[in-house]
Amino acid sequence: MNKKKIINDPIYGFVTIPSELVFDLMQHRYFQRLRYIKQVSLTHLVYPGALHTRFQHAIGAMHLMTRALNILSGKGISISEEEREGALAAILLHDIGHGPFSHSLEHTLIEEVSHEMLSSILMDKLNEEFGGKLDLAISIFTDNYPRHFLHKLVSSHLDTDRMDYLIRDSFYTGVSEGVISFDRIIKMLNVVDDDIVVESKGIYSIENFLVARRLMYWQVYFHKAVISAEQMLIKALKRAKYLQLNGKDVFATPALHHFLAHKITEENFLSEEEHLDYFTQLDDMDIMSGIKVWAHHDDQVLSTLCRRLMERNLFRTEIRNEPLPEVELKEIEEKVIRHFKIKPEDVHYFVIPHPIQNSAYDTTLDKIKILQKNGDLEDIATASDLSNLESLTKRVQKHTISYPKELKLPND
Amino acid sequence: MNKKKIINDPIYGFVTIPSELVFDLMQHRYFQRLRYIKQVSLTHLVYPGALHTRFQHAIGAMHLMTRALNILSGKGISISEEEREGALAAILLHDIGHGPFSHSLEHTLIEEVSHEMLSSILMDKLNEEFGGKLDLAISIFTDNYPRHFLHKLVSSHLDTDRMDYLIRDSFYTGVSEGVISFDRIIKMLNVVDDDIVVESKGIYSIENFLVARRLMYWQVYFHKAVISAEQMLIKALKRAKYLQLNGKDVFATPALHHFLAHKITEENFLSEEEHLDYFTQLDDMDIMSGIKVWAHHDDQVLSTLCRRLMERNLFRTEIRNEPLPEVELKEIEEKVIRHFKIKPEDVHYFVIPHPIQNSAYDTTLDKIKILQKNGDLEDIATASDLSNLESLTKRVQKHTISYPKELKLPND
Amino acid sequence: MNKKKIINDPIYGFVTIPSELVFDLMQHRYFQRLRYIKQVSLTHLVYPGALHTRFQHAIGAMHLMTRALNILSGKGISISEEEREGALAAILLHDIGHGPFSHSLEHTLIEEVSHEMLSSILMDKLNEEFGGKLDLAISIFTDNYPRHFLHKLVSSHLDTDRMDYLIRDSFYTGVSEGVISFDRIIKMLNVVDDDIVVESKGIYSIENFLVARRLMYWQVYFHKAVISAEQMLIKALKRAKYLQLNGKDVFATPALHHFLAHKITEENFLSEEEHLDYFTQLDDMDIMSGIKVWAHHDDQVLSTLCRRLMERNLFRTEIRNEPLPEVELKEIEEKVIRHFKIKPEDVHYFVIPHPIQNSAYDTTLDKIKILQKNGDLEDIATASDLSNLESLTKRVQKHTISYPKELKLPND
Amino acid sequence: MNKKKIINDPIYGFVTIPSELVFDLMQHRYFQRLRYIKQVSLTHLVYPGALHTRFQHAIGAMHLMTRALNILSGKGISISEEEREGALAAILLHDIGHGPFSHSLEHTLIEEVSHEMLSSILMDKLNEEFGGKLDLAISIFTDNYPRHFLHKLVSSHLDTDRMDYLIRDSFYTGVSEGVISFDRIIKMLNVVDDDIVVESKGIYSIENFLVARRLMYWQVYFHKAVISAEQMLIKALKRAKYLQLNGKDVFATPALHHFLAHKITEENFLSEEEHLDYFTQLDDMDIMSGIKVWAHHDDQVLSTLCRRLMERNLFRTEIRNEPLPEVELKEIEEKVIRHFKIKPEDVHYFVIPHPIQNSAYDTTLDKIKILQKNGDLEDIATASDLSNLESLTKRVQKHTISYPKELKLPND
Repeated sequence: MNKKKIINDPIYGFVTIPSELVFDLMQHRYFQRLRYIKQVSLTHLVYPGALHTRFQHAIGAMHLMTRALNILSGKGISISEEEREGALAAILLHDIGHGPFSHSLEHTLIEEVSHEMLSSILMDKLNEEFGGKLDLAISIFTDNYPRHFLHKLVSSHLDTDRMDYLIRDSFYTGVSEGVISFDRIIKMLNVVDDDIVVESKGIYSIENFLVARRLMYWQVYFHKAVISAEQMLIKALKRAKYLQLNGKDVFATPALHHFLAHKITEENFLSEEEHLDYFTQLDDMDIMSGIKVWAHHDDQVLSTLCRRLMERNLFRTEIRNEPLPEVELKEIEEKVIRHFKIKPEDVHYFVIPHPIQNSAYDTTLDKIKILQKNGDLEDIATASDLSNLESLTKRVQKHTISYPKELKLPND
Repeated sequence: MNKKKIINDPIYGFVTIPSELVFDLMQHRYFQRLRYIKQVSLTHLVYPGALHTRFQHAIGAMHLMTRALNILSGKGISISEEEREGALAAILLHDIGHGPFSHSLEHTLIEEVSHEMLSSILMDKLNEEFGGKLDLAISIFTDNYPRHFLHKLVSSHLDTDRMDYLIRDSFYTGVSEGVISFDRIIKMLNVVDDDIVVESKGIYSIENFLVARRLMYWQVYFHKAVISAEQMLIKALKRAKYLQLNGKDVFATPALHHFLAHKITEENFLSEEEHLDYFTQLDDMDIMSGIKVWAHHDDQVLSTLCRRLMERNLFRTEIRNEPLPEVELKEIEEKVIRHFKIKPEDVHYFVIPHPIQNSAYDTTLDKIKILQKNGDLEDIATASDLSNLESLTKRVQKHTISYPKELKLPND
Repeated sequence: MNKKKIINDPIYGFVTIPSELVFDLMQHRYFQRLRYIKQVSLTHLVYPGALHTRFQHAIGAMHLMTRALNILSGKGISISEEEREGALAAILLHDIGHGPFSHSLEHTLIEEVSHEMLSSILMDKLNEEFGGKLDLAISIFTDNYPRHFLHKLVSSHLDTDRMDYLIRDSFYTGVSEGVISFDRIIKMLNVVDDDIVVESKGIYSIENFLVARRLMYWQVYFHKAVISAEQMLIKALKRAKYLQLNGKDVFATPALHHFLAHKITEENFLSEEEHLDYFTQLDDMDIMSGIKVWAHHDDQVLSTLCRRLMERNLFRTEIRNEPLPEVELKEIEEKVIRHFKIKPEDVHYFVIPHPIQNSAYDTTLDKIKILQKNGDLEDIATASDLSNLESLTKRVQKHTISYPKELKLPND
Repeated sequence: MNKKKIINDPIYGFVTIPSELVFDLMQHRYFQRLRYIKQVSLTHLVYPGALHTRFQHAIGAMHLMTRALNILSGKGISISEEEREGALAAILLHDIGHGPFSHSLEHTLIEEVSHEMLSSILMDKLNEEFGGKLDLAISIFTDNYPRHFLHKLVSSHLDTDRMDYLIRDSFYTGVSEGVISFDRIIKMLNVVDDDIVVESKGIYSIENFLVARRLMYWQVYFHKAVISAEQMLIKALKRAKYLQLNGKDVFATPALHHFLAHKITEENFLSEEEHLDYFTQLDDMDIMSGIKVWAHHDDQVLSTLCRRLMERNLFRTEIRNEPLPEVELKEIEEKVIRHFKIKPEDVHYFVIPHPIQNSAYDTTLDKIKILQKNGDLEDIATASDLSNLESLTKRVQKHTISYPKELKLPND
């Protein structure tokens, strides 16, 4: 292979592209599109450095996969060249179906199609183009490959996706508490009974990883201003689509226009080629160039949301243990209706309740297994009397409410 | 001041916003616009991490200014509160006039107006809005303030602008050789005869700084693929403007449309308000959303340039000591005309010569003065027999030529 | 002050020496002695980088104190120049009474005198020499100064001592999970009711700090090989002293000889000047040069311990939840007696039980108070339903047993 | 291999011990001795963090060797398992012959035996003990192995020894300008005609490496206070040996005593076993425990030198372009004789001229070859018109003079 082989990554230094197939996948326009989709949506309005993209993340996760596979091989786990390439392609493409602003706009532009389904469709498309070379990658991705530990490296509590996004989001936000010792964690991985396990002396690193992850949730992903910006963005898109569907033109790139002008069901999406075509042309720029132009639209709801987003004049967001009582919600809504002189049926664009929840270690999915020195496997939550892991399994649910900060809550 | 006071920066950690004026300037939509203008244009096509913006850079340079002023105060240089705020506002706004893709598109969209003139116009605008509070900042920026060392911190070989961009570009590209010891350099600054000087034991740090800067030029700013992408971008914009001016509509946001549809002289720009209005709505997203749509335009020249940019299928770029001989240039042009079946007058869009030059330490501007222990001042180039600084003054000129890589040069 | 003012620290970069008094204290031979006392004893046998000294730690803690005082001043807490210098001198000298190998050898060489008493004696001595300039520092150190928050910065859950040692031990061992965001923690400190409190948005940083601290305990301070080496060191010193007191000369520097040849009570120590004189000449080198020579001593117990230390042939250490049952202990002891052909009364040199315990957040001392936005103070353990802090208060006790690895436990 | 396999290094993270032979070599008491020999002698008196040892450096250089060999293998250079282990053992042991305080005391304690000869003797000893397993390592080390590029990785301009010491000394002193991009340099290495070469796009990294190296010389290795301390140390040792040889006992550990009490020629050293025995027991602690005790010796010359070293009251050192003129030297010497009331023949202990010289890129040894894209090899000094490499070949010679700072030079 005499193609460009090395990529500079601010976090890992040099990342080597491991094979020609991977290189060719990276060159594909589906993958190049990820250059223009930010990993953490509008988080940069709070943490200005957080401009990193799905493109960087996918390459980073692939780099961690390379390291993990090398460590496991070094411990005597046999991994064939095909399996290696399959696992690398699977992790490289795991986010290929993300649309603009990643999670924020999922189900807003295309109501019925999830990013997982889109990833699956796009991988199949690529597999066709690459003459079946992605068969193994796809079967690892969908956990249909008999050696399940490979899937676990792509998707589980300790997959290389999570490791990379946690490190990367920490690095680019500057929230250094999120930095984890990925090198140590990866060196502690092993395979027992076809499952990824952690050797016992890695237990503190795992706890540190889970604590760091929870901290990132509450300090970054659920930061009030981040929630506010994302809710405003969703509402702006919904309003634009509402206007377009109701005969009021809004400026848009052709790809965005397509999704504003059509309600697309899952069935449509799968049967009509053009939806996917347009989807693969869509990225953050389509959305943001719309938002910027709409700041001057003559629909007051749309222009208010967009102008405030562009000028970073965000709604106030409160986080509460319980949902706001119906009575108080009504009170706010009425004030908003009066203050902004909007129709009652439009108030939901400006007063936005949104529940959030997180569990640092969600044991309903899978469990992190610790490999004791005597060969026993134990759930990490009970493996050590020294750690706090049990308390990390608790699920925390909160309720946010966002509204223009000109108003105040009744009890302010 | 009970406003948000701290910003997380991945490089410096916490950056404190030093005053209410600075905070208010940062909230202004002129400054918020810098969030959407990348510091190093299309460099991210080579170094995927290089997505940092003028917004981050301006804040970073302000942070270094804070540190520099603190160091100088600590050495007994008296700096009043007004001077401090003036210097901070001046550095914060030093790039306020940059348009999309910074230097790359200067003089492409608005042929006759430089970013310095635009900065100057926008600062005056802001000064009006802020009731004259920027008088001192502007006089420091334009070097009309009698204490010239303050201007030197904003613009000179050792200004905080250069220090921040060098550190920041290094950090985000991952080219670690560019990392400089800004902490050490700043601690070595002093003021003599109203000029910024460096104490003698800082001489190696300065040499390191200049060597790092040269390295960044040749490894990053003049990277072949970066030059290629930027030249292709310029040509695409020129083609779009050509088409629009010749009655062939191209998709564009309203702000971009304005500049595609008008040739604007300096005189127009200064006399007609709307040009500035549109300019302050323009950022990288307008350009890139255009490029993406134009990839499907029916003008072959435009669509070829844009599709290749989006798919990162860049022209080949060669760097030579001498310009390509006229004969060889012609030969390439003819091959391109034949291969792409384009008109001879359009070949300049696909075969692009572009000279580059750099001097690590350009002594025609100002000189870096070393403060010897005995109080003497010396030009750094001659201050030490240990260093290589003299050789860093040499100006290097090269000639690049970019063209579709389907072709090869005659002597390949 | 025209004395050397800046120190390079690998962690913080440049550390500025804040005053002439501090500079002069650092020049004193009592403080220079700390250059030769390692912060973490024999930990370098496991983590080879852990060679950092009490000298570096004291300067680092002083640096964090400078930052903390600046932050508090910036928040409107008035701190006079005298108080500032007092707090800085107090933290600089907080470990001045440490003997060689810090905690490891406390109560081994001088049975009855603690390092706190020694610090106190040495500060008084210095205060005499400096003509009373340390009065305020001493009263802060002993918590007799009426503004108690200054003492809290010297000694409490969030003192700058702990912050520095945690960062420093992490940095030099390379156990990156211990790295804490000291910058963030310090920026979140405030003073309420004369006590150091943490502003509410610092809660995750504190949890991270406490989790990191616990991790450092179990991964570094209580690492089996570290415990083994330290117990062997203690036993070697005890044996050497036993031999010397019983008329069998062991090689020693004059200072070490003094403490090997005398049993010194607290009363002696306080009444006879020579003990302190010798103590202030004692550092790690005296001990290690003894150990090295004793490896060739003809007393088998002493030479075995010392030779194994020098060749890093350490005892095996086990960590158990319960003390080893008496019966099993006897069995090991008998094996050791037979195998090494030593006298039964000497077996305690080779079979060494040692309890360890740790609490990440020991609430029996003081509590970390969180300052809520409404001004309320709350114990951090209950301040947030998101964190695990409550579980961090639990005290963990373990039991270690070390013995030559030639043997095996009965149940191996 | 079920032995301890991973070492934490603060710089590289986890270092894997590559083979059982390497592990066993590291366990040998010859190698463990390097734990107690600091890499940069008394530099810690200026840069307090610089306490790192030859032990850490040897492991670090071995780690870089592992990386370099992996890169070269990846480029198709065939390297057998035996060659790999040979190169790793060779670099691991390259400094095995260093005595206490490394270069500083070479030729002081044992006048006629260099550290290279000692390394060679000790490797042969080890080879015997390991039953010839070091044959290949030794032939690589001595450049008798036919594949010379392996020797170049052990000893040349671009050997892994230099790379590690430069990074490590930078890291531990905190002089960040010395940090080099070892990862990039190693990735650019290749083998042509059995020689190590650098691929052309590594040229700036090499220049950066050479500039950083020169900076480290003048900022660290030739720092005035470092030179002063090392010259004082040498003089103290010479005085102690002079006294001991002239019947005046000085305290010393047995190993140090041996070298103080005997003048040992190369012939003696090679023929009498006991010299080597004692040498392998000698490390920094023997010297420093002597210095500390001698601070109280009744010989005024010895006690003055030692007391000042312990209290960091160093001589003043001047660096000049020319040697101090004979007349001025005499003047200083006379002042010293009068002030300290010492004998004229002892003045050389207190007035110490010492020449220093450095060349960033000494082309009299070997040359750094650049591999151009067309396959040509070129000397780096001429390979690029962009760099300053030619000027880095210049040799700089300076002259230092150290003397008690109570005195002043005539022209002060």
